[in-house]
Amino acid sequence: MMDRSRVEAFSDGVFAVAITLLALDLAVDGPGHGPLLHQLGHKWPAYVAYVVSFFVIGVLWVNHHSLFGQVARVDRLMLFANLLLLLFVVAIPFITSTLADYLLSGGQDSRVAAVLYALVMEGMGLSFSLMFVHVVRAGLLVRPLTQEASRAAILRFGLGAAAYLVAVAAAFVWAPLVLLIAGAITAYYIFERVPTEPAAPVASGSGDSDG
Amino acid sequence: MMDRSRVEAFSDGVFAVAITLLALDLAVDGPGHGPLLHQLGHKWPAYVAYVVSFFVIGVLWVNHHSLFGQVARVDRLMLFANLLLLLFVVAIPFITSTLADYLLSGGQDSRVAAVLYALVMEGMGLSFSLMFVHVVRAGLLVRPLTQEASRAAILRFGLGAAAYLVAVAAAFVWAPLVLLIAGAITAYYIFERVPTEPAAPVASGSGDSDG
Amino acid sequence: MMDRSRVEAFSDGVFAVAITLLALDLAVDGPGHGPLLHQLGHKWPAYVAYVVSFFVIGVLWVNHHSLFGQVARVDRLMLFANLLLLLFVVAIPFITSTLADYLLSGGQDSRVAAVLYALVMEGMGLSFSLMFVHVVRAGLLVRPLTQEASRAAILRFGLGAAAYLVAVAAAFVWAPLVLLIAGAITAYYIFERVPTEPAAPVASGSGDSDG
Amino acid sequence: MMDRSRVEAFSDGVFAVAITLLALDLAVDGPGHGPLLHQLGHKWPAYVAYVVSFFVIGVLWVNHHSLFGQVARVDRLMLFANLLLLLFVVAIPFITSTLADYLLSGGQDSRVAAVLYALVMEGMGLSFSLMFVHVVRAGLLVRPLTQEASRAAILRFGLGAAAYLVAVAAAFVWAPLVLLIAGAITAYYIFERVPTEPAAPVASGSGDSDG
Repeated sequence: MMDRSRVEAFSDGVFAVAITLLALDLAVDGPGHGPLLHQLGHKWPAYVAYVVSFFVIGVLWVNHHSLFGQVARVDRLMLFANLLLLLFVVAIPFITSTLADYLLSGGQDSRVAAVLYALVMEGMGLSFSLMFVHVVRAGLLVRPLTQEASRAAILRFGLGAAAYLVAVAAAFVWAPLVLLIAGAITAYYIFERVPTEPAAPVASGSGDSDG
Repeated sequence: MMDRSRVEAFSDGVFAVAITLLALDLAVDGPGHGPLLHQLGHKWPAYVAYVVSFFVIGVLWVNHHSLFGQVARVDRLMLFANLLLLLFVVAIPFITSTLADYLLSGGQDSRVAAVLYALVMEGMGLSFSLMFVHVVRAGLLVRPLTQEASRAAILRFGLGAAAYLVAVAAAFVWAPLVLLIAGAITAYYIFERVPTEPAAPVASGSGDSDG
Repeated sequence: MMDRSRVEAFSDGVFAVAITLLALDLAVDGPGHGPLLHQLGHKWPAYVAYVVSFFVIGVLWVNHHSLFGQVARVDRLMLFANLLLLLFVVAIPFITSTLADYLLSGGQDSRVAAVLYALVMEGMGLSFSLMFVHVVRAGLLVRPLTQEASRAAILRFGLGAAAYLVAVAAAFVWAPLVLLIAGAITAYYIFERVPTEPAAPVASGSGDSDG
Repeated sequence: MMDRSRVEAFSDGVFAVAITLLALDLAVDGPGHGPLLHQLGHKWPAYVAYVVSFFVIGVLWVNHHSLFGQVARVDRLMLFANLLLLLFVVAIPFITSTLADYLLSGGQDSRVAAVLYALVMEGMGLSFSLMFVHVVRAGLLVRPLTQEASRAAILRFGLGAAAYLVAVAAAFVWAPLVLLIAGAITAYYIFERVPTEPAAPVASGSGDSDG
C-alpha cells in the first residue's frame, strides 16, 4: 500500500524528462554542413516524429492522470506495472530519433526502424492495459466501474493495442505509415474520453479541494 | 475535469528540464581547440542566448503559475492547450542553440535561425493566449474577471504576440534584433503584473494554507 | 527538522532524470554505419543493461518511497545520507553505458567495467542502509519497529550489500555475471516486501487521505 | 503573491536535473581509446569535480529548502531572485565539466577554467544572499528573525560570498585550489545550520502535518 501522490510525482517526472529529451533530436549539424534552410528541410522527418511522439507521451500522460485520479490506493503490482509502462516511455526518445533518422532511407532499414517504433508503442499500450485491468480487478478504484463502463474501457484499450499491431504490420509495407497510425491513435484518444472519467468527480489532488 | 495540481507538476517538470537543457549549449569544444579564453570569447552568442531564453522560460513559468493559481478546475481543452504550449517550450533549447550557432554567420543562415527563434516564440505566445482566452470564456477561473480586467489581459497578451511578429520581421533585417526584442518582451513581463493577479488572493497550494 | 515532502520531491526528480538518461545509451550510430538491424543486434548489451539498471533504480525508488512513507520527520543527517545515496544513483547511467560498451570486450576492460558497476551498486546499497539504520536509531519512524522487524530489515539490507560484494568478486571472473546478479537482487526486492511496510498503514500523502 | 509550493516544485526540478546532468561528464571515450582503467584514471579530475559540484548543489538545495520553509509568502521580487539563483545553478554542469577538462592543462587555460568556476559560484552565493536579505526586509518570514539571528545569518552568507572571492583569487594561483575551497565551503555549510531554522518548527508540507 503506497500513497498515490508520490507514484504520480515520480511518473510525472519521467514523462516530463522523456518528452523534453525528444527535442535533442531536432538539432541540425551546425555551421559548415550546408545552408541552414537545407539542413532544416532535410530534417523534416525529425520534426514530424517529434510532434507525433510528443502527443503520444502527452496523451498517455493525460490517461495516466485520469486513471490515477480514480484510484483509491496503489498496491505493489500496480507499482510494478507502472514501472513497466515507464520502461517503454523512457525508450520513446530513442525510437523516435531512430525512426526519424531512417524514415527516408528506404529498404529494410526504414522498415526495421518503423517496426521498432510500433513495437515499443505496443509494449506501452499493453503495459497500460495491464495496469488498468489490474486496477479494476483488484478493486483499487474509488468507485468500481459498472460492467458496462468496464467493458467499454477494455474495448477502448483493446482498440489501441490492436491499432498498434496494425502499425507493426504496416511498418513492413511503408515506414511513414507508422507515424500516420500513431498520430491517428493519439488523435482518437484526444477526442475520446477515458471511460473512467464520467463516473468520477473525485479527482482533485492537493490544492484543489477548497479551490 | 482534472485536478490542477498534477497538471502543474507535469508542466513544472517540463519547464525545469527545458530550462536546464539550455546549458548544454554552453560547453566549449575542449582541450585541443585553442586557448580556453578564446573559445569562451567566441561563444558569447551562446551566453547571451542562454540568458535571454532562460528568462523567457522563467517568465513564462511565472505567468503559467499565475494563471493556474486562478483556475478552479482544468478541462480537457485546457489540458491540450497546455500540451501545445509545452510543445513549443520543449523546442526552446533547440532554437536557442541554433540561433547561437548561426547568429554571427551573417547572410541567409542567421536570418533563418532568427526567424525560427521568433516563430517558436510566437507559437508559444499564441498557445498561452489560446489557453487564457479559453479559461476566461469557459468560466474556469475561481473569480471571473471583470470586463475591464479581461480586456486588459487580452490587450497584454496581444501585445506580446504582436511583438513577436515584429521579431519575425526584424529577423529578416538583422538576426541579433530577435534576441534584443525577446529580451525586451521578457523584461516587460517581469515588470508588468499578470492581470488576473490583483483579483485573487486564493493562490496557495498544498502546505501553504495552514502554514 | 525538514519537511519530508520536499525531500521526496527532490529525490523523485533525481530518480526520474537518472532513469530517463539511461535511454541515451540506446541510440545506434545512425545511417552510414551498416544495416540498422545489425547495429541494433550489436547493441544488445546496451538493451540488457538498460532493463537491469532501469529496474535497479525503479526498485530503489520503491524502497525509498516505503522508507520515507514511515518517517515522521527528516533530520539533517538523514538529509545528507539521502544526498550520498543520490550521488550513487546519478552515476548509474554512466556505469550502465560503460558496462554496456565494454561487456563484450573481454579481458581486463570488461572486468574493470563490471567491477565499477558493482562498486557503485554497493555504494548505493550501503548509503541506503546507512539511512535506514540512522532512521531507526534516531527514532524518526512514525511507529518504531519491533526488535524483530528491525532485525529482519537489517538482515534484508545486509543481504543486498553482501550480494553486491559477491557481484564485485564475480566481476573479476566474468563481466556479464554482474548484470545477472544485479537482476537477481532486483527481482528479490520486487517480490520481497520492505520490512517496515506491514507495521504502517499511515502512508498516504496529499490527496490520498480523503480520496 | 504566489504559492510557495509551486516555486519549490519548479526549483526542485531544476536542482534535480542540474545535479543529474553533472554525471554526463563522467563518461569515458569508449572502446578504441586505450585500456578502460587508464581512461578512468585520466579522468580523475572529472570524478573529483563531480563529487564537489554534487554537494555544492545538494547543500544549496538544503539551504534553499530551509529558507522557503520559513517563508510565509513569495512575492514577485523573491521569484525573480530565485530565477537568478537558478540561472547560476543551471550553469554548474557546464563549469564543472570545463574545470575537469582543463584542471590539468596548466598555464592560462586551467586558471581560466578555475576562475569561471569560482565566478559562477560567487554569482550563486550572491543571488542566494540577495533573496535572503529581501525575504528578511520585506517581512516574508513566518516568524521575523531577531536582530541577532539576522546579523548571524548575514555574517554567515557574507562568509560564503567572501570565501568564493578568495576562490577567484586562488584560481589565478593554482586551479585545483578552487575545488578544495568549494569543497571546504560546502563542508562548512553541511555542519553549520541555517540561522533561520531554530526559530521555526513550522516547516512541514503536504502529507506531513498529520503524520
